[in-house]
This record gives sequence, structure tokens and C-alpha cells, in this order.
Amino acid sequence: MIPVEIIKQKQNGDHLSPIDLQKFILDYVSGLIPDYQMSALLMSIFFNGMNDDELFSLVEIMVNSGEKMDFSYLEKFTADKHSTGGVGDKVSLILAPLMAAAGLAIPMISGRGLGHTGGTLDKLETIPGFQVDLSLTECKKAVEKIGIVMMGQTQEICPADKKMYALRDVTGTIESIPLICSSIMSKKIAEGIEGLVLDVKFGNGAFMKNIEDAQTLGRMLIRIGEHFGINTNVVFSNMNQPLGKTAGLWCEVQEAIESLQGNGPDDTMEITFELGSHLLQQAKISNTRDEAISIQKSMIESGKAFDKFLEMVETQGGNSEAIKQNKNIHTPLFEDFVSSNQSGFISSMDTFEIGMASITLGCGRIKTTDIVDPTAGIEFLKKTGEEVQNGEAIIRCFNSSLSKLQKTLKRLDSVIQCSDIPKIHTLIH
Amino acid sequence: MIPVEIIKQKQNGDHLSPIDLQKFILDYVSGLIPDYQMSALLMSIFFNGMNDDELFSLVEIMVNSGEKMDFSYLEKFTADKHSTGGVGDKVSLILAPLMAAAGLAIPMISGRGLGHTGGTLDKLETIPGFQVDLSLTECKKAVEKIGIVMMGQTQEICPADKKMYALRDVTGTIESIPLICSSIMSKKIAEGIEGLVLDVKFGNGAFMKNIEDAQTLGRMLIRIGEHFGINTNVVFSNMNQPLGKTAGLWCEVQEAIESLQGNGPDDTMEITFELGSHLLQQAKISNTRDEAISIQKSMIESGKAFDKFLEMVETQGGNSEAIKQNKNIHTPLFEDFVSSNQSGFISSMDTFEIGMASITLGCGRIKTTDIVDPTAGIEFLKKTGEEVQNGEAIIRCFNSSLSKLQKTLKRLDSVIQCSDIPKIHTLIH
Repeated sequence: MIPVEIIKQKQNGDHLSPIDLQKFILDYVSGLIPDYQMSALLMSIFFNGMNDDELFSLVEIMVNSGEKMDFSYLEKFTADKHSTGGVGDKVSLILAPLMAAAGLAIPMISGRGLGHTGGTLDKLETIPGFQVDLSLTECKKAVEKIGIVMMGQTQEICPADKKMYALRDVTGTIESIPLICSSIMSKKIAEGIEGLVLDVKFGNGAFMKNIEDAQTLGRMLIRIGEHFGINTNVVFSNMNQPLGKTAGLWCEVQEAIESLQGNGPDDTMEITFELGSHLLQQAKISNTRDEAISIQKSMIESGKAFDKFLEMVETQGGNSEAIKQNKNIHTPLFEDFVSSNQSGFISSMDTFEIGMASITLGCGRIKTTDIVDPTAGIEFLKKTGEEVQNGEAIIRCFNSSLSKLQKTLKRLDSVIQCSDIPKIHTLIH
Repeated sequence: MIPVEIIKQKQNGDHLSPIDLQKFILDYVSGLIPDYQMSALLMSIFFNGMNDDELFSLVEIMVNSGEKMDFSYLEKFTADKHSTGGVGDKVSLILAPLMAAAGLAIPMISGRGLGHTGGTLDKLETIPGFQVDLSLTECKKAVEKIGIVMMGQTQEICPADKKMYALRDVTGTIESIPLICSSIMSKKIAEGIEGLVLDVKFGNGAFMKNIEDAQTLGRMLIRIGEHFGINTNVVFSNMNQPLGKTAGLWCEVQEAIESLQGNGPDDTMEITFELGSHLLQQAKISNTRDEAISIQKSMIESGKAFDKFLEMVETQGGNSEAIKQNKNIHTPLFEDFVSSNQSGFISSMDTFEIGMASITLGCGRIKTTDIVDPTAGIEFLKKTGEEVQNGEAIIRCFNSSLSKLQKTLKRLDSVIQCSDIPKIHTLIH
């Protein structure tokens, strides 16, 4: 089958055979098929979707395009968590050490900032000395030794996904549910995990704007997980306002440390515990959700979760002493406030715009070559449902570039709306 | 606007502004936008179409990407004909000199064989010495001097279309009605013509399989023509069997010569006269269809049409003496016959398959680097509605490669079906 015939098949709404799909993708990875033909196929998939057979084939091809880890020799239940991306979402930084403290093995591969959402790797790199670019051997060693690693995708893991993802980014084919699902799941399957919990976000700050799309995505993720023998749970969480009290780089690490020390914001802890209780039940460490939540709380109270975090920082070359001594590692040079221009109860927050403002501030990249500002962040002094007075400060912005700060303040001018009625914001659905 | 945002706009079904479309296309031509982004945009256009504003912009951008000819200083009405492509379609070879003989100026730019259809340039090149690769200056000179030129697309005419067309060919985006229409019309508009007649073919040997798609295409072509001030008519013609008595290279030139000498097959002449009568009425050379047909017949009877053909051959470096002396210029080394395996009336011919068989025989290219065989062709001894006996020869194949001939005969084994009822085949709708 010649490449253009495979493109036309998908374009006509026919289903691709595993053999054709494999040949197309492997020829693309090896450079035999050029970007422009993969681009045409991806756009046809965007419009015509994929059935489960195609989806499972695609995931399998992407996994087999690289190396697959194997932790089956460990005594521990190996698991991971993934989020579809939000604003202020520092849950991985809390959940991974918490689960490792509870006895799971967590070989977590994360990404950089994407669009308006922050990146776990960018946040971790604000810890002085912390290395995220590990080899698979270093990854394996860390998981064996301390039960946790938080690192970036390596060249060995799903190279097909890596090359396709870069192309999707510049051809408008990121937002295809089967392509999103296969990209997420192939990397997780390559980690060699037994359990997985997925935080599928919806709302004005998520990639999926409504719960229906989020559910379609969530169901597809579960079907892939089950097909590949991974115990998979999905939590649908609301991203109509940022999560926790900050969105940014070092400030989110600080918030994660406070959370591990027992002082986390309610919303951040609620979603963390919800995700964690799925993993603890998958691992048979607890039998009920309530029991699983108790275990997590005790891991925090006893200091074991925070100790695991420090252990991870040390193992990955970071300065754990600085964190223990609670030194203010990245002090911003500038700060300013956004005030409410009306009195009432906060009824809505334009979370996408807040995410984009955090990028402007220095927390992310517009071009891949941009350098992030570790001091940059946004603090939410008020959240949805809270009462504010006209003129009261509701948002604090901070960074180390005055021009970027001023630009950001303009963007944030009308992101928060008030009404007369206090509204209840439901986090987990 | 960044390229990926323009792709996403079209992907979402929004309409592109003339400025965005122009920037995207001109940046593509200059190499600033890579093939893979144009490929994604073309596939989005394939799925979401274009409204008239976008279509007119696209045509204008493609015309302005290169040079536009101007024949307004001539006394003659400048016109052209285009066909959407068929099997055995040698009408251009007859109509162009016929119209030039009647007093029109015909600066005709044609193409090479495409898919299963023959190419006017490939046919013309079987005339010894005939040059189709002319410069715009040579083109202009020929039109000024003898009122006709038949040549290939130059680098100066619509370079944007040239580059986009090559990409469409390898990304499955040929068969998009707005892309087909803009590609056809931009080249015609760049010719600087005042009148145009389009032969839009439908049926099992055409790119448009049904009359509805052909009509959508035809209406779009007319709207573009009118928008750019070109008097445009469309004729819908049936391609459920090959046109005329042969399909091939030199054999089609021979058939065209015979037609210009008054011995053309009925179907070939019917469509030629129908197209020609539109042009003669556009040029105000005649007021009615009947009068226009009479003029054309008299041009053939008087020998003026054939003389114009010879004049063109000479002007473009061809050997007109050989043609005048009716020498058999390209004698095939081999021939063989396909016989009917049933008795009855021919009810259908798989025209697409016959077109593909002619390519196998040597009349076209599978790869662009393939060399065509000028001697190759297929003669249709019987056409739709005619009576045949079991075992009677219905198709004669000829070329100069025995292995290709044998391969072709296999392909043609079951392309013709018979029934008990003589069916009437309507040519023009």
C-alpha cells in the first residue's frame, strides 16, 4: 500500500489495518515517509476519528517503536498518575511522593508546559540542582532504591509518539481525542506500570471545555488501559478556576511542599486524595476509599510523604537542605495586584486566560526556545464563591521582569466576574 | 496570525480572511511555511470546503503569485477550453485549431497525463519536433502571428498552484472541489482570456462519478469565471465510455487529424461542436447554437481548421509535412485483441479501468519519471449500445512492448458488459 492510498482510506472514513498503520508510522519514524504525508494522515484522523481496533494498534505501534520498562521483579505495585492539564495543577508533585511513601513504586514521566498549562518538569527544575533528564538506567535505579522518580520523556520511550507529537503541535492536530489518548497511554504503557489513575479535567481552563468531551476522552483512556492490562481509573475534575492558591513555577513547588507538610489548600488536597485513593485500592493497600484517604492523611501527618519528597530531590541531584530549611529559593523582584472592580461573590474565573497570563509572566514558553522565569507566578487571593469588595485585591502577580509583569496585569484585567449570589464550585465529578 | 492558528480556523469550519490566506500561501511559495503545514491546511479545506469569498481570494492569490498574460491589444476575442479529464478525450486537439480558424485567439495551456486520463501535452509531443515547453514570449508571438498556441504551464504562470498541486498529489487532497476549481481557473485567468468553455465530465471514467458532483463543480467554475470577468460556459458530458474511437498518444492525434479533415467520430464531433458553439457565441461570431455549429462544419469542410492545425505544428517546431503526407509516424510493433465473452448489446464499459489499462500499455506514467510510448493506444471496435457476438473482437490494443501489452490485455478482460437491450448513451447533459 502506497502512503497516499493510506491517507485516502482514512480520509474516506475507512478503517486502517494494523499492518498499514504500522508501516506508515514506522516509515515515518525512519524518515521514509515525509512530514507532509504524516500531517495529512493526522488531519484525516482529526476529522474521521479512529475505532478501537485502530486505537489499540496505534498505541501498540508507538510503545513498540521504543523501549518498554519492566518493574515486574519489584515487590511493589508499580503505578502512575496523569493529568490532562490544568492551571495551578501541582498534584503530581504531592501525589507521587505520597504514593511512594505508602509503598507504591512510581516511575513518573512528565512533560513541559503546554499551551496555557504549566509543566511538572519546569516546576521541578526550580529546585536547585534537580535533574529531570535521566536515562532509563538511572530511572530504574531510583525506582528500585526509593520507589519514585519524576523525569522527562527519554529518546528510548515511544520515539514515534515524540516525533508525531512535535508535528501535531505545528499542524493543528493536537486536539484529536484518539491522538490525545494514544499519546498519553503509549508513554504510560512503556513505563511498565500495573496501575494508573487519570485526572481528566474539563471547564474553561482545560483542553476539554465540557464534561461530555472529557467523558469521551476518559472512557477511551480506560478502554486502552484495560486492553493493555493496566488497572485504570479516571477522575473528572473541574477546571473552571485554577487549582489551589498559586499558578507558576517555584511558587507551585512551595505550595506542594506545604501540602506535603499538612498545609495544602482544600481543593488541591481533595483531588490529590481522590486520585491517591484509587491507586491505593488498585494496589490492595486499602479496601475502601475512606481507608485510603486515612492512610494518605497519616502519611502526611507522620512526615513520611515529605521525607519521600526530600529523598527524591536528593536522589535526582537536588538541594534537599535548602528545601528543609524552608529558604526562599526564588525571590521575585517585582509584584503587583489586580483588584476587583465590583462588589459581590466571585462567580467565574477565565482560567484559560489566567493560564495564558502566567505564560506572559514567564512561567511558560511561547516559542520552545524561550527561557522560563522560576520566580514567576500568580497567587489567587480569592476563589470562586468568595465575597469581594470593590477595589479589593484578588490576584497577586510576581516575577523578575517588570515589562512582562505590566503586560500580564493588562491581560488579567477582566478575568474575574462577580454576581450577587455565592456559587458553589464542585471540584470532582 | 501564526500558521497553526490559520490551520485551526479552517479546521474549525471558520472562514479565512483574504489577508491570512494570502500570507499563508505566499509564505508557502517562498518556503517560510513548510510542506507539512500546507498539507494540514489543504486537508482541512478538503473536509470543510471554502465559501465563495475564500475561493475568489485563493484564485486571485494564485494568479498574482506569477505573471498574467494580456492579449487585450489583439483585435481577436481571446478564449480557451478546459476539460476535467476523460479517457480518449482529444477534443482540445480539434477544438483549438477550429476556433483559431474561426477567428478566435487561443492561448491554450494544457497538462500531462493525470491518473487514468491522457494528457494533451503527451499527445502533442508525438508529433515529430513539436515543442510544448515555450516561454511566455514565444507563446505571445505565436498567438499574435497565427492565433493559437498549445503549450505546457511555465514557471511564470501560477507558481503557487504549481507547488500546491504537487503537494496535493502526494497528500490525498486532489479531490477537493474548491481546490480543483481554483487550480483550473487560476491558470485560465493568468492566460488573460475573455472567454472560456469548460467540459465537466462525469461518470465511471471521470473524476466526478455522478452528475450532482459535476454540477457543483461546474457551478463553482462559472462563479469564479464571472467574478473575474471571464465569459464562462460549462458543458456536462458523459464519461461512462471512452470518447471517440481511440485512447492513447499518437493514435489520438491521428483521430484528431481525421476529425479536422471531416472524418471524426460522431461523439467526438458532438462534444467538440457543442463546446465550440459556446465560444463562437461568446465571441459574437454567431448568435445561435445552430449557426455556430454550421460555421464550425464549414471551417472543417473548407480545410481551414486543418490548415490552422498544420500552421500551429509548424510554428511550434513540428514536422507538418509528415502530417500532410499522412505518413504513419508511430507504427506499433505489437497488437492484440480483446473479444467479447457473450453475445448481446454493450451495456457498460469500465472507463476508469480502460484508462488505467492505457497507462499500463505505455500511454501515461505511474511515476513522473516514466517514459511514455508514442505508439501505444487502444482502439474501441464497438461502443455502448452496439451489438456484439460471443467471441467477436471488441478492443484492439497496440504498443511497442510485448510484456506491457500482455499485462494490459489481462486488465481489459472484463471491462465490457453486455445485456439483451440496446441502450442509448446520451453524451451531453
